[in-house]
Amino acid sequence: MGGATLLSDLGTEIVIPICALIGIAFAVLQWLLVSKVKLSTASKNGITDPLVEEEDGVADHSVVRKCADIQAAISEVPIREKSNDTGATSFLVTEYQYVGIFMIAFAILIFLFLGSVEGFSTESQPCTYDKTKLCKPALATAIFSTISFLLGAITSVVSGFLGMKIATYANARTTLEARKGVGKAFIVAFRSGAVMGFLLAANGLLVLYIAINLFKLYYGDDWQGLFESITGYGLGGSSMALFGRVGGGIYTKAADVGADLVGKVEQNIPEDDPRNPAVIADNVGDNVGDIAGMGSDLFGSYAESSCAALVVASISSFGINHDLTAILYPLLISSIGILVCLLTTLFATDFFEVKVVKEIEPALKKQLIISTILMTVGIAIVSWIGLPSSFTIYNFGEQKVVKSWQLFLCVAVGLWAGLIIGFVTEYYTSNAYSPVQDVADSCRTGAATNVIFGLALGYKSVIIPIFAITISIFVSFSFAAMYGIAVAALGMLSTIATGLAIDAYGPISDNAGGIAEMAGMSHSIRERTDALDAAGNTTAAIGKGFAIGSAALVSLALFGAFVSRAGISTVEVLTPKVFIGLIVGAMLPYWFSAMTMKSVGSAALKMVEEVRRQFNTIPGIMEGTTKPDYATCVKISTDASLKEMIPPGALVMLTPLIVGIFFGIETLSGVLAGALVSGVQIAISASNTGGAWDNAKKYIEAGASEHARTLGPKGSDAHKAAVIGDTVGDPLKDTSGPSLNILIKLMAVESLVFAPFFAVHGGLLFKIF
Amino acid sequence: MGGATLLSDLGTEIVIPICALIGIAFAVLQWLLVSKVKLSTASKNGITDPLVEEEDGVADHSVVRKCADIQAAISEVPIREKSNDTGATSFLVTEYQYVGIFMIAFAILIFLFLGSVEGFSTESQPCTYDKTKLCKPALATAIFSTISFLLGAITSVVSGFLGMKIATYANARTTLEARKGVGKAFIVAFRSGAVMGFLLAANGLLVLYIAINLFKLYYGDDWQGLFESITGYGLGGSSMALFGRVGGGIYTKAADVGADLVGKVEQNIPEDDPRNPAVIADNVGDNVGDIAGMGSDLFGSYAESSCAALVVASISSFGINHDLTAILYPLLISSIGILVCLLTTLFATDFFEVKVVKEIEPALKKQLIISTILMTVGIAIVSWIGLPSSFTIYNFGEQKVVKSWQLFLCVAVGLWAGLIIGFVTEYYTSNAYSPVQDVADSCRTGAATNVIFGLALGYKSVIIPIFAITISIFVSFSFAAMYGIAVAALGMLSTIATGLAIDAYGPISDNAGGIAEMAGMSHSIRERTDALDAAGNTTAAIGKGFAIGSAALVSLALFGAFVSRAGISTVEVLTPKVFIGLIVGAMLPYWFSAMTMKSVGSAALKMVEEVRRQFNTIPGIMEGTTKPDYATCVKISTDASLKEMIPPGALVMLTPLIVGIFFGIETLSGVLAGALVSGVQIAISASNTGGAWDNAKKYIEAGASEHARTLGPKGSDAHKAAVIGDTVGDPLKDTSGPSLNILIKLMAVESLVFAPFFAVHGGLLFKIF
Repeated sequence: MGGATLLSDLGTEIVIPICALIGIAFAVLQWLLVSKVKLSTASKNGITDPLVEEEDGVADHSVVRKCADIQAAISEVPIREKSNDTGATSFLVTEYQYVGIFMIAFAILIFLFLGSVEGFSTESQPCTYDKTKLCKPALATAIFSTISFLLGAITSVVSGFLGMKIATYANARTTLEARKGVGKAFIVAFRSGAVMGFLLAANGLLVLYIAINLFKLYYGDDWQGLFESITGYGLGGSSMALFGRVGGGIYTKAADVGADLVGKVEQNIPEDDPRNPAVIADNVGDNVGDIAGMGSDLFGSYAESSCAALVVASISSFGINHDLTAILYPLLISSIGILVCLLTTLFATDFFEVKVVKEIEPALKKQLIISTILMTVGIAIVSWIGLPSSFTIYNFGEQKVVKSWQLFLCVAVGLWAGLIIGFVTEYYTSNAYSPVQDVADSCRTGAATNVIFGLALGYKSVIIPIFAITISIFVSFSFAAMYGIAVAALGMLSTIATGLAIDAYGPISDNAGGIAEMAGMSHSIRERTDALDAAGNTTAAIGKGFAIGSAALVSLALFGAFVSRAGISTVEVLTPKVFIGLIVGAMLPYWFSAMTMKSVGSAALKMVEEVRRQFNTIPGIMEGTTKPDYATCVKISTDASLKEMIPPGALVMLTPLIVGIFFGIETLSGVLAGALVSGVQIAISASNTGGAWDNAKKYIEAGASEHARTLGPKGSDAHKAAVIGDTVGDPLKDTSGPSLNILIKLMAVESLVFAPFFAVHGGLLFKIF
Repeated sequence: MGGATLLSDLGTEIVIPICALIGIAFAVLQWLLVSKVKLSTASKNGITDPLVEEEDGVADHSVVRKCADIQAAISEVPIREKSNDTGATSFLVTEYQYVGIFMIAFAILIFLFLGSVEGFSTESQPCTYDKTKLCKPALATAIFSTISFLLGAITSVVSGFLGMKIATYANARTTLEARKGVGKAFIVAFRSGAVMGFLLAANGLLVLYIAINLFKLYYGDDWQGLFESITGYGLGGSSMALFGRVGGGIYTKAADVGADLVGKVEQNIPEDDPRNPAVIADNVGDNVGDIAGMGSDLFGSYAESSCAALVVASISSFGINHDLTAILYPLLISSIGILVCLLTTLFATDFFEVKVVKEIEPALKKQLIISTILMTVGIAIVSWIGLPSSFTIYNFGEQKVVKSWQLFLCVAVGLWAGLIIGFVTEYYTSNAYSPVQDVADSCRTGAATNVIFGLALGYKSVIIPIFAITISIFVSFSFAAMYGIAVAALGMLSTIATGLAIDAYGPISDNAGGIAEMAGMSHSIRERTDALDAAGNTTAAIGKGFAIGSAALVSLALFGAFVSRAGISTVEVLTPKVFIGLIVGAMLPYWFSAMTMKSVGSAALKMVEEVRRQFNTIPGIMEGTTKPDYATCVKISTDASLKEMIPPGALVMLTPLIVGIFFGIETLSGVLAGALVSGVQIAISASNTGGAWDNAKKYIEAGASEHARTLGPKGSDAHKAAVIGDTVGDPLKDTSGPSLNILIKLMAVESLVFAPFFAVHGGLLFKIF
């Protein structure tokens, strides 16, 4: 074929880990920079850093101390009066214990199911692609799939946990820096986000790289077996992400909805008021849901798209010719991505400076644009040095010759589709544009029209992202079949470090605002953190857009890999087996959403009753003379999320197994396709509807335009209607919506991992009848 | 094959029209019975009928006169003070004028597109299934498709119009009978519904029968050409239904939402209070949306499932052997359906009597059960005498031998799946069961939790109906391929006369309640009409469930017929052309819903402003001394619905054309499958969510249980939250939800009609590149 790659195999083996290590070093550097903001009142010789700027309370030791206390409560350390653990750390530890049990059980299942394919035989078998050669037995696949599953799960847990740690480390520091000005606060929040982004991207890459190299010691040149085993890494990552997203999502929204309904609506006290008993739970929730959950989620997407690309590549000419550099092309893309994101980050933290509030959102947007432009160059370089000029892909029995520039286009189209999805999401969820302003305007006639307009906005916001995804699919599929789709997904995720930095920035700012409020800091500081937070709302929606778009591409790639691994050559809609799968698959996101929304609703009801009880029975709570019982509220969120994450989790994890075992591969293919095409729509619309409601409320509260002022101020009828919309949107945008992308990815990767089992033992029902 | 049918061809030619005529005669009889309730105060020798029962105002001439006036205003005749037409008749006439223009334009398009397939040649061509024989030219197909399109459109319009006429004829009569007791009122409302049901079922059958026989005069034994032309009938019916549903839906909900938001929420006056300026528009809306729109919709489903079955049958052994009785099996099913429904109706009107309020809902439910049981016998008889004992179906190039008992099972599984969907819908939308009660309970914590719980309920209510549809598809597909699906859909629709009677009963009772309120009748009468209405809400939801379930089956059958007519043999998901169609198709219902919901929202905003303006500027309106300006509100609804029905209508009508012409048959297949599997879910969930909110509100208002009383009374905070949910649900359940089933059917039937054109001229973009 098209000859060797410019980059030697040795070069590849060096470049990848070095880029990963650079990413980790950069993350550590950012952490050090953040840690320069001192949270203890006693710095060297008992005097706090001299603060140059204006602002009351800057030199007030008690404020710093208060912030430190609140941070400690959110993060982990028991609140002074209470002895039970209540913070994010202890929640995550409990959550991971529950999930750990599942993880071990599922690991055993993987081993047993995959091992049974050849009856646990230890003998090598003829390879599927070349019967004259011997490949490793199914038992080896079972063992290594189990190991990579556990590796993926652990990496996911670590990613989420580290993200939470840095976020809770940074929140109070952001608050304190806000005293010096919005620019300083922005940099702290953004750097902290970057810590998470880089750690996650670099760890994900490094672990995958090490696993491949270790597995290769056993597999030798049986690359198909090697990369099929590696798919367990994606499954592990995504299954942890599911529980993280769902559990965290229920936790955070039960607390948020509960706090808002009584605090804002009934008692008319501001958001994050320390008198509200659910306030600590709410702030903890931001960290376990939006930070840890999202971190696991994006790590899962990243792991899956890499695995999908690798497993498809292993049966291409790369795999057969044992061209190491070319087959590790997906990892090279991610490596260059880390360098690109590093450079991009400097634009926000060093090359430019945010001075006033209205520069925040453009600064974040610029991150997306710069990283996309730089990454396009990066992809071009990697495609030039990391690929032979042409190579062959096997697509369901047919061969397809692909040129390296075509593969470049596949990655680039994914990358740019991500940017388009990001911008469309921004347009529909930022209150700088007419869609959100229309929703705000509809509050004039009450909550009902607000809800109607918000739902309609969400539905409408689906159109362009779907076309962007469609074009990516068509282009990449046409050029390089399923491999093209997989690398397009990887392209969308190649700037993950920047994406995550922007994304994590939101909840950190949100928390910072909460801490300012709780510490009783002045109004002007609260305004600064609010401005940071409003920009964070939009970027959070953008991040969700990326997550969903990439999930769609990843799932399709995994789906293709599944079909090819399961040994069927066609998924024909017009057969009953496939069509019933399609329609049932399209139903699953509804079932799943019903479960998660109901969970949030029920937990919120309990929270409301508890908060009301405290307001009614604890004297002095409204006057601020008695501290509310935060711990009970935290317990309600904790219990609800741990209990309620099981049924939706089981639905997603068991469906592929049940369908595969009883109905077989064709029906399972239908289910995957149906869940994908239906789930992506609900996910986008739910997430944008929620984001729009949130910002419509903020638009009225901020009163920054003539129009907004006619709707406000806080407490007006229109504002009350907007608060109702915001509350409805909470579970949509932070629980059910973002969990759906995990649903579609996870079912696909699980099917892929279990494909050999289904191919041998599946379809029991049809075999019987 | 399996020999001849027991029923001779002549027998078939006699049985079908006779059954249709019996249906029409029965409808006329019911109309006569309804008309016995006199609306004029002067009956023979100036004395009204002696009324036996209690009740104030029974002998009060002014009440009768008032009712007659209000009825006239709703129906058509100008309100006395105003000279402009405002009623349902004039709206429908205007609507049909608009739609008429479209109809003619589209008819021309059909002629040109289909005629161009063979370049408008008038020469006969070799048949596709047998090259040795000559078939009629494409030009003939073009002409006859155009004619059958127009026939379908006109029949649809007539069905809707007649339904509206009888409904506006019956509403005041129901009110007046309510003075004598709930049983009398129930019978009037139900008989009126039956008039509509039987007229529609019988007309639909008769016109189709006549068209087939007339077309046969030209086509002779070219049955494939004949039945392909007949598919225009389904397209005509459904395209009118689209505009009827969307236009009527926007009309009714703009008025309803507008009236509720100001009247109930702001001014605290009851529903249907004559002081509310939007009250007439609201009542007109019930008739143009829920009656005329729904009539057209179900007629469309009926026409399409018949056409789908006929076109598939024409290329089976029936068509090739020219076995007339067997090929008209779908019409025989409908014929027996009319007789079964006739018998069923007597159970409600003659064999049993509704005496107290709580017997209403069981009486309606019994109708569904009785008709389903009787129809099962009916189908068995028709399958026994109307089918050869075995026959051959051609399924994408393969032959499949089907036994008559297998086809019986196909029809029966559709019929019973309909009943299951009906019951599940009832469970999720009736306030006798826990789902709605939970939603009502969530109003305790405000509108936000109400909306969250309601949305979750709707999502959850999708599960069982989808499994019911899935099983029907699997069974019928396995037995008789696409023909099985088509007759399963027909089975679900075979009791359409009863279904429609129950369905139309709802808005009639709703109107009757409105008239009672406006005429200032006593509270006890209003209570009776409210009870009728509450039962009607649930049956309306059941009716929508049927409509959606049958639409899913019909679309699939049409889709299969399209694929087969377009000459492709496979719809492979894992090709880029099909997959992009699938994901875009799944997006269309969201786009469509966004348009229709936004339309309702915007029109409602205008309505709210107008109603507020009148309350603020017309003195004496709240005291009831000055009449509000009803006509302006009617005009707002009229203008909004006529203007806003165009974009969603265009989306649905143009999508198959654009996709077919530019992207070709494979992508169009994907679009149809995607829209089907995604649309059916949104349709079910939207319609059930709306129904549940409506009944949760009624549950609190009625206060019939201990639990309900803790939430009420009217005007409590929980009730206000419930009203917000109800208002959000209005466009979901009466505009976007029920229109979606037309979307999926219509795109499928349109593709089927244009299939030969796409096969020859389609896929331009892919041809260029």
